[in-house]
Amino acid sequence: MRLAEIGELPLIELIRRRFGQRSKGVIAGIGDDAAVIESNDNNLLITTDMMLEGIHFDLSFTTPYHIGYKLVSINVSDIFAMGGIPKYLLLNIALNKNIDKSFVDGFFDGVHDAAKLYRVSLIGGDMSSSKKGIAVAASLIGYSKKQIMRSGAKPGDKIYVTGNLGDSACGLEILKTAVSPKPSAISKGLKAESYPLTAKYKQKGLTWNIISPLIQRHLMPVARNPKSFAGYATAMIDISDGLFIDLTRLCNESKVGAKIYAEQIPISPQMKKASSIVGMDSLKLAASGGEDYELLFTAHSYPPAGGVKITCIGEITKKDRVVIDEKGRETKLKTEGYQHFGIKR
Amino acid sequence: MRLAEIGELPLIELIRRRFGQRSKGVIAGIGDDAAVIESNDNNLLITTDMMLEGIHFDLSFTTPYHIGYKLVSINVSDIFAMGGIPKYLLLNIALNKNIDKSFVDGFFDGVHDAAKLYRVSLIGGDMSSSKKGIAVAASLIGYSKKQIMRSGAKPGDKIYVTGNLGDSACGLEILKTAVSPKPSAISKGLKAESYPLTAKYKQKGLTWNIISPLIQRHLMPVARNPKSFAGYATAMIDISDGLFIDLTRLCNESKVGAKIYAEQIPISPQMKKASSIVGMDSLKLAASGGEDYELLFTAHSYPPAGGVKITCIGEITKKDRVVIDEKGRETKLKTEGYQHFGIKR
Repeated sequence: MRLAEIGELPLIELIRRRFGQRSKGVIAGIGDDAAVIESNDNNLLITTDMMLEGIHFDLSFTTPYHIGYKLVSINVSDIFAMGGIPKYLLLNIALNKNIDKSFVDGFFDGVHDAAKLYRVSLIGGDMSSSKKGIAVAASLIGYSKKQIMRSGAKPGDKIYVTGNLGDSACGLEILKTAVSPKPSAISKGLKAESYPLTAKYKQKGLTWNIISPLIQRHLMPVARNPKSFAGYATAMIDISDGLFIDLTRLCNESKVGAKIYAEQIPISPQMKKASSIVGMDSLKLAASGGEDYELLFTAHSYPPAGGVKITCIGEITKKDRVVIDEKGRETKLKTEGYQHFGIKR
Repeated sequence: MRLAEIGELPLIELIRRRFGQRSKGVIAGIGDDAAVIESNDNNLLITTDMMLEGIHFDLSFTTPYHIGYKLVSINVSDIFAMGGIPKYLLLNIALNKNIDKSFVDGFFDGVHDAAKLYRVSLIGGDMSSSKKGIAVAASLIGYSKKQIMRSGAKPGDKIYVTGNLGDSACGLEILKTAVSPKPSAISKGLKAESYPLTAKYKQKGLTWNIISPLIQRHLMPVARNPKSFAGYATAMIDISDGLFIDLTRLCNESKVGAKIYAEQIPISPQMKKASSIVGMDSLKLAASGGEDYELLFTAHSYPPAGGVKITCIGEITKKDRVVIDEKGRETKLKTEGYQHFGIKR
């Protein structure tokens, strides 16, 4: 059924019924001019992020479910990067009126599952028709007793990252070049049948076992909860545009330098394998590939991991930002990574 | 200079320099993963609204300044409609990279002037490239000690509206049919030279004095602050999609009926004149035209206006929603008005 046959009010009513259970602290949720939440003693964290068709997602290999799921994750990642607890979500959705209702259903399935995972409540938003293309945005409110800024790093602090880097960028590359996605067969659970490898890359040795964690990280990233180590972090940022560019942001805010040991940057065996098969430099993907949604933080002492993989990749210095390669050679850190408006610097 | 020649980071730095003055209560503003604001005793209000090129604005008669100004106003209107005080603004902006930097400057001029008017601080946001077209969204945080919901109206309450209705919808119609706008000449102050009347409508008696307040209300609406009467209101909503549709929303939430006296609906002399010249029904524009951004509220007793024009247009009843025309005839209230996805009901 096309949205034009349903209309805005009934659509919002459906969403309200699904997400309308009043959670603690929410005085008024969906269905008024603004949402109302109770005050408490913690500081409030607020972030917002947008995803546009053709820029942030490609419908030939991304389902509406993935879009909804990822939209929540990337906003949660920002709250986590402040050491906060995500709580309340608002959505902005612009869709063409000829889009089928199943798109909205899938999108909200993804929002629902991610919101459940992070214990976040949808409390409001805005729905609009678009002329062409899909635009979605979310704003997320969270709390923190003590927020971790980008600006707190001091010379001598060690630099840590969570997880592995470059998986998402490598997964995107594979989606674009090494598989022939079957959008109609793509469901929320990733299955080999939906992303069959092209004969060329199958022959070269790519397998579903190699590519599936990479594709998964790109389409359905899970934000890293820093709960176990937040108490140790002096500065923190989430890696959304690439390690080097986001490290540079942290260094700029802290007015410090950094020394990174290239060999220490954590790379998954699958990414190492896949990148070599598709002819990409795994270190470059890890250092400059976007959308990792891992956390980059600095600390005086080695923090407890608490189930999250944590790797020390270098240390904060007074001024220069440099990379030490495997032979001990020092080069200037180049802030490559994803930037909008086409400038990399 | 095109955005592609400037890049995202320098652009954000420019915005930060302009809006970065830390206002009271803001612990971290633009430049971190999330904004941080101090907690206080009041409840928090949160709202979000989106504006898309081709749907919400037409660049042939709208300047970037108007878009920025209106985006802030329509979000403030939602916070005012809850009886709250708007405080903190987050923006989402998606622009094509070939857009000229003057667009961004004009947009932020508008945001700046409106933010100043409402004493709102820009504390964060997200900037992205778009494939085509412009999409902007804002999220606004406000406070209230006692919020006014849509759900508080009781049978016997009188129904009030602020200002005049239909000016904005009539202004839009004039922009589309009766003037030949010169976008290059359009500045933030509205001038007759920028919107010359077509010969046909000049001959029919339309003048700049008649149309300018209508155009102004459409391009640069000022949200109504309910401060003087909020204490009297039992329920409130802002009129964004049209009086009848928004009244219906209020009645649905309050589970009540309404009786509206058509003759009481406030219509400006300019709108009355202009609509008759362009051949539109002024009452229809006032009852169903969108984007008034006036407040509709219910109260037991006549509230003090405090500089805002307030008109009683009817009363809350138990169940049916009806309109009484000038001859005393009762008809069912039709919820015409602007709805996305093309359904009017």
